[in-house]
Amino acid sequence: MKTIRVNSYDVVIDSGIMDKCGEMIKNVTKAQRFAVIADDNVAPLYMDRVTASLANEGLSGESFVFVHGEKSKCSETLQFIYSFLAAKHFTRTDCIIALGGGVTGDMAGYAAATYLRGIDLIQIPTSLLAQVDSSVGGKTAIDLPEGKNLVGAFKRPDLVLIDTDTLKTLPEHFFIDGMGEVVKYGMIKSAPLFDKLCGYDIESIKDVIDDIIYECVSIKRDVVEADEHEKGERALLNFGHTLGHSIEQYYHYTLSHGRAVAKGMELVTGIAEEHGLCEKGLGAKLAACLDRYRLRIDIEPSLSQLGGAVLNDKKRQGDDIGIVVCSEVGKSSVVKMPVETFLSYLG
Amino acid sequence: MKTIRVNSYDVVIDSGIMDKCGEMIKNVTKAQRFAVIADDNVAPLYMDRVTASLANEGLSGESFVFVHGEKSKCSETLQFIYSFLAAKHFTRTDCIIALGGGVTGDMAGYAAATYLRGIDLIQIPTSLLAQVDSSVGGKTAIDLPEGKNLVGAFKRPDLVLIDTDTLKTLPEHFFIDGMGEVVKYGMIKSAPLFDKLCGYDIESIKDVIDDIIYECVSIKRDVVEADEHEKGERALLNFGHTLGHSIEQYYHYTLSHGRAVAKGMELVTGIAEEHGLCEKGLGAKLAACLDRYRLRIDIEPSLSQLGGAVLNDKKRQGDDIGIVVCSEVGKSSVVKMPVETFLSYLG
Repeated sequence: MKTIRVNSYDVVIDSGIMDKCGEMIKNVTKAQRFAVIADDNVAPLYMDRVTASLANEGLSGESFVFVHGEKSKCSETLQFIYSFLAAKHFTRTDCIIALGGGVTGDMAGYAAATYLRGIDLIQIPTSLLAQVDSSVGGKTAIDLPEGKNLVGAFKRPDLVLIDTDTLKTLPEHFFIDGMGEVVKYGMIKSAPLFDKLCGYDIESIKDVIDDIIYECVSIKRDVVEADEHEKGERALLNFGHTLGHSIEQYYHYTLSHGRAVAKGMELVTGIAEEHGLCEKGLGAKLAACLDRYRLRIDIEPSLSQLGGAVLNDKKRQGDDIGIVVCSEVGKSSVVKMPVETFLSYLG
Repeated sequence: MKTIRVNSYDVVIDSGIMDKCGEMIKNVTKAQRFAVIADDNVAPLYMDRVTASLANEGLSGESFVFVHGEKSKCSETLQFIYSFLAAKHFTRTDCIIALGGGVTGDMAGYAAATYLRGIDLIQIPTSLLAQVDSSVGGKTAIDLPEGKNLVGAFKRPDLVLIDTDTLKTLPEHFFIDGMGEVVKYGMIKSAPLFDKLCGYDIESIKDVIDDIIYECVSIKRDVVEADEHEKGERALLNFGHTLGHSIEQYYHYTLSHGRAVAKGMELVTGIAEEHGLCEKGLGAKLAACLDRYRLRIDIEPSLSQLGGAVLNDKKRQGDDIGIVVCSEVGKSSVVKMPVETFLSYLG
């Protein structure tokens, strides 16, 4: 079992800890009642194991299940969650458990941040993407019709439980999805991680995935502790995300986040190379690594078609936008430029 | 001009400062664009003066107007605000101005707390209730069908501008409404304030209202600085609110908050006297003071009918509930008891 302390909470990584979750949860919250929120893919696999483990400790777990998919990460589902909590008389001393992938963690986390102005929150991420990225660091959000993650809050979980056994039941395309963020960590912060990734492929990486998750969470810990509320350093985690979000929006969120971000990383690195913002050949290195994880895709929209959505990007500050650029593998910075300049780069 | 520093922001009290708001706002935020949110009662009176003052400083103000009333403090109006902000491409460096009473401050404040995970916020409260209470201290919220203020966030404003001239246009029943909270401050924390209130009435108090507001905000400052996130002391501000919220809910929010809270204070003080939790005669003292401000009302529901809503009260903690009780004028504490006990007190 590996534990990483982030700010005020632990991220625990091990295989099979799902069945011990009640015991571990009991140590971090005084809550007696738990709303376990999961989508209809994850609930049949893990809901009973979580509520059974809670029951073993004398804790009560009530399940809330919603339809899977990014489209559910919206105001309507959130209202259903609030109504569920209110109808069941959940109070400030009760707790939400987010059991699932990024959508569940974001939305259940946001509910925990805002219901009664905040109640306790446990994250049990079951997708690779959620394990290496979204469950750690306290960002929660829902989407608006106008764009992704436009409404949200910073909410520290009280515990993050990563059961790596869940990856065995994870459909292949979700595993690929998560690898997009893993490659991102290598690109922005760790040449050793990137080099390691270049020595494996989508199959063989699974043998060392516990270590890979540990390395990613460690990088995220460093970044989040330096800048919890994204005033500076934390923005580096958005590498590939500005164009990635535009791509997701273009496809109405039918394309996976990881693949969209991978394409975003490729595109922004291409632009960086073209305009002398990074070393020559970086795009090819990145492409070779992405290839190993089936993360290179063709997309319909041209670069210029992706520009419109950039205007609603959270990273925009007035007339400027901060674009994350890697100058070489493992080194990244935010390049601030007028929105107009960035749009002209897109052509 | 009187200024009270609360945590990290100033509360400025003066007559006529509405027309100088642009200058004062410019000193506390780097924002260039402002969404000025007001209801359809307040907007015709003050919107142009606020945007004109912003324009004088070269700042842009875009107005969002919604239908007045507690019923608007809901998820639907919030979605309209989010869509407005997104459609106008408001970014993290822009700012919301809440111009109006408690409903506006709560809802616009909550929008500022959550849009893009938080943008700057200026409160310009125009009702007595908002000036003495809801605009200060950072509590923001919207209502759910299941109860009031069940979804919210703590969000410090960057500035609170109290223009006491607005009270001259405030309809009488709104002024009475605010006096409910003023009497509350005397009851929970200040015998001198309570005694002063007993020397005026609803007409004559207006001559000294600037001083009264200053005293109330000072009390609130002390309470909020001691306990910003309502872990203890701050709960005292909820005196009368548990039953007050039940009464409001019974009347579907057609009864004013101040009058409902006044009735709640009377009822809970009656219960306290009956069960030896306060000095004899306190109920009569409170009633005499409330009489001066036309705050004594008859209500339809019996005490026992008000019990159901208590189960959804935010102050409930698991099976217990904290009830604020004044032992004498100016002295208050939270009495924790099983919900069942409190319900039995209600009969």
